Amino acid sequence: MFRKITNADQAKEFFLKAFRPVEGSELITIENCDGRIAAEDVFSQVDVPHYRRAAMDGFAVRAADTMGAGSNSPVLLRSDKDGEKGICTRVHTGSHVPDWADAVVMIEDTVVHGGTVEVFTQVHPFKNVGEIGEDIRKGELIIQNGHVIRPCDIAVLASVRIDKINVFRKPVVAIIPTGEEVVPRGSRNPEAGEVYETNGLMTSLYVKKWGGIPRLLDVVTDDPEKIKEAIQRVSGADMIIISGGTSVGKRDHVPAVVESLGTLLVHGVGISPGKPTALGLINVKPVVCMPGYPVAGMVALYYFARPAVRKLAHLPDEPYRVVRAVLSEKIPGRTGYKTFARVKLKNGKAIPLATSGAGILSSVSKADGFVIIPENVEGIGKGEEVDMVLIE
Amino acid sequence: MFRKITNADQAKEFFLKAFRPVEGSELITIENCDGRIAAEDVFSQVDVPHYRRAAMDGFAVRAADTMGAGSNSPVLLRSDKDGEKGICTRVHTGSHVPDWADAVVMIEDTVVHGGTVEVFTQVHPFKNVGEIGEDIRKGELIIQNGHVIRPCDIAVLASVRIDKINVFRKPVVAIIPTGEEVVPRGSRNPEAGEVYETNGLMTSLYVKKWGGIPRLLDVVTDDPEKIKEAIQRVSGADMIIISGGTSVGKRDHVPAVVESLGTLLVHGVGISPGKPTALGLINVKPVVCMPGYPVAGMVALYYFARPAVRKLAHLPDEPYRVVRAVLSEKIPGRTGYKTFARVKLKNGKAIPLATSGAGILSSVSKADGFVIIPENVEGIGKGEEVDMVLIE
Repeated sequence: MFRKITNADQAKEFFLKAFRPVEGSELITIENCDGRIAAEDVFSQVDVPHYRRAAMDGFAVRAADTMGAGSNSPVLLRSDKDGEKGICTRVHTGSHVPDWADAVVMIEDTVVHGGTVEVFTQVHPFKNVGEIGEDIRKGELIIQNGHVIRPCDIAVLASVRIDKINVFRKPVVAIIPTGEEVVPRGSRNPEAGEVYETNGLMTSLYVKKWGGIPRLLDVVTDDPEKIKEAIQRVSGADMIIISGGTSVGKRDHVPAVVESLGTLLVHGVGISPGKPTALGLINVKPVVCMPGYPVAGMVALYYFARPAVRKLAHLPDEPYRVVRAVLSEKIPGRTGYKTFARVKLKNGKAIPLATSGAGILSSVSKADGFVIIPENVEGIGKGEEVDMVLIE
Repeated sequence: MFRKITNADQAKEFFLKAFRPVEGSELITIENCDGRIAAEDVFSQVDVPHYRRAAMDGFAVRAADTMGAGSNSPVLLRSDKDGEKGICTRVHTGSHVPDWADAVVMIEDTVVHGGTVEVFTQVHPFKNVGEIGEDIRKGELIIQNGHVIRPCDIAVLASVRIDKINVFRKPVVAIIPTGEEVVPRGSRNPEAGEVYETNGLMTSLYVKKWGGIPRLLDVVTDDPEKIKEAIQRVSGADMIIISGGTSVGKRDHVPAVVESLGTLLVHGVGISPGKPTALGLINVKPVVCMPGYPVAGMVALYYFARPAVRKLAHLPDEPYRVVRAVLSEKIPGRTGYKTFARVKLKNGKAIPLATSGAGILSSVSKADGFVIIPENVEGIGKGEEVDMVLIE
């Protein structure tokens, strides 16, 4: 029924190469930029520390004055404890070291007698003194364009007195649920033959999780003109995800509509479930047409929408979170298809969920993850160790 | 100078056992519960599907009427296409199967001539019909107490018409930055001997990332009474993190204050950097005293505050995100200490950052992760494969 089933990896590569990350950035306060991506190189405008800093608790001294000091032959220095300017002065870790001093003697190597300090060790110049700019030099690159900003980076930005930074704007992803049988949630209970809209809701939450801004549209019925109108209404979006209507039946108009408005790159993919997935471009913006069957739709989201959203957002194509587990029962593969088997994790075992049908969303909800069986593998045997992709 | 250095793993285990997850939940709309933890078992109040559902495009029939049909001997059925009640009726995947029908013949096995349908295959009862409750049965458990809710779970909740769910409230974590030399950001440029407050800011962002609600207090100077007042002011919090003043110097009052208000469990931990970390309890609520030195403080956060916040939040103690890499240069360990070496990741190589000093926050910002060297290991050699903990 499908003219051609495209290999999953090839489809993904072909699709991801066909568009570019979003342009445009926004200036935001550093407190709000955790997880955002720097859209500029950021250089420090100051030295850190901006003063000569004691690296230890002790006394700031002139190193030359300690010459000859030893554990049995202390040198006596006058302290400024009583207010008079002296030749040694008490400092704490992080304190300012006065200009006349060039070293710090550790407190453990001193004994204080009123205004006099016995120093029991000889120190060389710069000992225990952090120089200006030792941590970060003025003009130094501190955040590189494209860097994913973390709380520790924000602390560094704060320490060099930067309070705003340019980050890439998040891609806006329009989500269009379709289907004659699909009714909006909440308004009234669905009648026989009707189901609540849930794919769009799920997709919105994944888009948000993956770094995009979801824009969920109202349900569109299986009418090519209505679908076309909906797509044209979101022409400002950076990406479009359409749920449903992707197969080859009488009511499946989505791929043809995408083709009429842009380019249909792929229709029919070697993933199971998820075969009816279509991928396209409209105005050089990526379009993922996910099957309406919830599990198939979810696999399509994971496999194609996740890396697409991340690419648009300038995020690296992060691998899935994976745990190793031992398969508790054989799971069959499907020749020519990358098979996503739902499994539950229990005491280090991956337990396949006995379920058929891409329509059974509860099988995903019961699952902790997928075991992915490659195209050329007949199945994976009981007792074999597998990588389990955690469903996030 | 420390009376005793406690082994890192033992300190962590001892600390985490000393308190319990937060009590109390809140009812929130399902759209907002991604990543939250169910505080109740949730059962479906409806069957899914709530009607008999066609699993294929085709015609709903009485199975008995197709007896004897084959590819050369079609059975003729009257269709209700023109409105009259017939004995077969057109259905689409997901359509309602009428009460009088008990099977669906696939469209591929039929030929339509006006009001008559030729059926070229025999079907048994229930063929291609999804029964009521096939996906989820009324009364079935769909979300278990303690489950971390994901977008796919939210789709299931939506499909059973649930729009709100009880989730555990997030733990409130009070963060108290201390230090005579620490000044609030932004007000004015720091003078010699002063630094901007950044540890509290960084801690707040990590607490949020790890599932807590941060409450960042104003900087408190190194005065035991002032520190005590600050702690008493946040007695409603579920956890307290205090930055700075944890060592054994003249200005280090934090551990003693914690001891005076509750229990000091540990002071001095076998992590490097991070030795001056202290852990305690005040009113059975966990207190992490992190060193003021930014890198040491960050290691203490990662090692103790992260699992503590997650435990309070009812989240499982998720392992760190780890990548395998080959070490480009030897890194030394430190006997008795779990050493956190900062490394940069480049082409599969972990490159140690040439830096000393727990004060150099920029070394963390430049790092992609930590390589953790166990207590009993002298060091890790060049070319060895290591697990690199990604800094999040």
